Amino acid sequence: MDNFYALIMAGGGGTRLWPLSRKSRPKQMLPLVEERSMFQMSVERLDIPPERIFIVTGREHVEMLHEDVPEIPIENYIVEPFGRDSGPAAGLGIIHIQQRDPEAVVAILGSDHYIADTVKFNRTLVAAHNLATRGHIVTLGVSPSYPSTGFGYIKRGEQLDVVEGFQCYHSAGFTEKPDGDTAIHFLTTGLYSWNSGMFICKANQVLNEFARQQPAMYAQFEMIAHAIGHAEYDDTLGRVWSTMKKISLDYAVMECADNMVVIPVDMGWSDVGSWSSLGEVLAADLDGNVSQSHGSAHIKIDTKQTLIVSDRMVVTIGIEEIVIVDTDDVLLVCHRDRSQDVRQVVARLKDAGDDTYL
Amino acid sequence: MDNFYALIMAGGGGTRLWPLSRKSRPKQMLPLVEERSMFQMSVERLDIPPERIFIVTGREHVEMLHEDVPEIPIENYIVEPFGRDSGPAAGLGIIHIQQRDPEAVVAILGSDHYIADTVKFNRTLVAAHNLATRGHIVTLGVSPSYPSTGFGYIKRGEQLDVVEGFQCYHSAGFTEKPDGDTAIHFLTTGLYSWNSGMFICKANQVLNEFARQQPAMYAQFEMIAHAIGHAEYDDTLGRVWSTMKKISLDYAVMECADNMVVIPVDMGWSDVGSWSSLGEVLAADLDGNVSQSHGSAHIKIDTKQTLIVSDRMVVTIGIEEIVIVDTDDVLLVCHRDRSQDVRQVVARLKDAGDDTYL
Repeated sequence: MDNFYALIMAGGGGTRLWPLSRKSRPKQMLPLVEERSMFQMSVERLDIPPERIFIVTGREHVEMLHEDVPEIPIENYIVEPFGRDSGPAAGLGIIHIQQRDPEAVVAILGSDHYIADTVKFNRTLVAAHNLATRGHIVTLGVSPSYPSTGFGYIKRGEQLDVVEGFQCYHSAGFTEKPDGDTAIHFLTTGLYSWNSGMFICKANQVLNEFARQQPAMYAQFEMIAHAIGHAEYDDTLGRVWSTMKKISLDYAVMECADNMVVIPVDMGWSDVGSWSSLGEVLAADLDGNVSQSHGSAHIKIDTKQTLIVSDRMVVTIGIEEIVIVDTDDVLLVCHRDRSQDVRQVVARLKDAGDDTYL
Repeated sequence: MDNFYALIMAGGGGTRLWPLSRKSRPKQMLPLVEERSMFQMSVERLDIPPERIFIVTGREHVEMLHEDVPEIPIENYIVEPFGRDSGPAAGLGIIHIQQRDPEAVVAILGSDHYIADTVKFNRTLVAAHNLATRGHIVTLGVSPSYPSTGFGYIKRGEQLDVVEGFQCYHSAGFTEKPDGDTAIHFLTTGLYSWNSGMFICKANQVLNEFARQQPAMYAQFEMIAHAIGHAEYDDTLGRVWSTMKKISLDYAVMECADNMVVIPVDMGWSDVGSWSSLGEVLAADLDGNVSQSHGSAHIKIDTKQTLIVSDRMVVTIGIEEIVIVDTDDVLLVCHRDRSQDVRQVVARLKDAGDDTYL
């Protein structure tokens, strides 16, 4: 698997984990689940050597990320001039990897998700590499643990093969975030997986999909690719990027790609997309309480189902299903069921033109 | 009323307002209700000139209190070598005042209580001074607003007089903190007031009560009184104090004092004895929320009956009847009904031998 590369998308912000995640310290930089940052965990769980791990991120984050994970060579950091969603970001990363190795197989991965069973994850990558080499685009489908309306789904069709012990299926299509009834239906059929956004395929093949489905974007990637290694690279990238379409990778090419294959896998994956979902990933005490304290004491009296994120001494008495997130300058106290509404607060602060706390 | 003195008892700690109140910054030093500290409010509400206001406090607090209220002459600060409850503290203050003015009438007052109607309070003091001059010990009885089991009560007997428009009654006796049923009974009779601990009487008369009821303590006060103004004062005080009985003023003399008179008065008094009771004193918004922010923003979404004490940005979403107290090193999140239990936490920290947070 010497031609196996990882492309880690590390551009996002993650306003749902405000006030811990900020513009200047986005979610992937936070030590949410362990003492290590989510980005460190994303890199270190991979059975792929650092020289073959590429990072796409914004200019403002490169230095911080490189300090966080110095083993990845600085030339493997691919800088987006500014965020254009995951379609352009993935394309940019892939043309760089393809220049390095025209035969590259690339695993396109997130930088801020949690995977409990890293052994199984890497075994799945081996299976996916096998299938990608045979001309498939592989997506890892997460076995849904509840009828989520917050994820897209992918339906499996005919079985293609069993590789490394994993059942692999032809894709029967992607579905956007469903309503509650549809989500329940999906789960009862047993045919649907969550779309985790993890794709494994030949670099060439995803570029061919761009050429077929997004010819304008493909032409733009070509211009950038020609400039790689030349003095005009930054100028070209900046010029091309300013007219680049803002579109997700799924929309741009994956949802309608040929030869899509899904490997359904249960590996304890979580997007840690809200305070509530962080609570599900961390180890709870007997009362269902979860603490992320980095060493400080949290004294809980008659406290249940509560998540506390704080590096200070926190005392709770007589509370239930509360999320407490305590940062240097902002304190959030929120009902666990309302943790998605944190985005509203961020939006409100943005609207007010006050970026002190953003 | 040139012989009218105030003796403000400023020795206490107030562990029920932890984590804001600490050993090094006790409750009376905190700007709980206004920007001013409770001690400043206690002094500034008085129609008594600063030269006739005396403070009893611990050595460790004198400097801080004097900085807080510099208009009170430093020689009016009477230092307890260490805390021996309110009986010895009051006696010590009174012998100093009596040396200054043998005809003194003294109002013994707290340093950390809130009084909304300061005009009525001062009118009550005028009435009390009148009665004290006539040989009574006067206590201000707070009209109970609910059947509290947290206060002692005083029962009124025969009416004595009407002074300055206030009905004044002979005392029919003090009662310790009652159980719930008894407290309800007290309220239905209409004869009981809360014992606020505010007493007005001639200095001589309270010393006579010590002589009659607590002869050993009286002898100790005599020894200290003889040393006032002499070089050996500190030595004498220290020696005497180390054998002084630890006892409250109520137990020591007031509960069995002769000529006790009660003036029931409704003046918006609160001992601000818990976070919950602070919530009752401060102005609430339409959802019953109360903020003590000293200027910082508190964003409340679907938040009700919640008290927030924080100088940081605080965001609350979907919570009800919660107390949030946010200090530099400790965060307390507590159900409003459980705010008394803060004392347990302080006791637990004390037992653990950890005074970092005390």
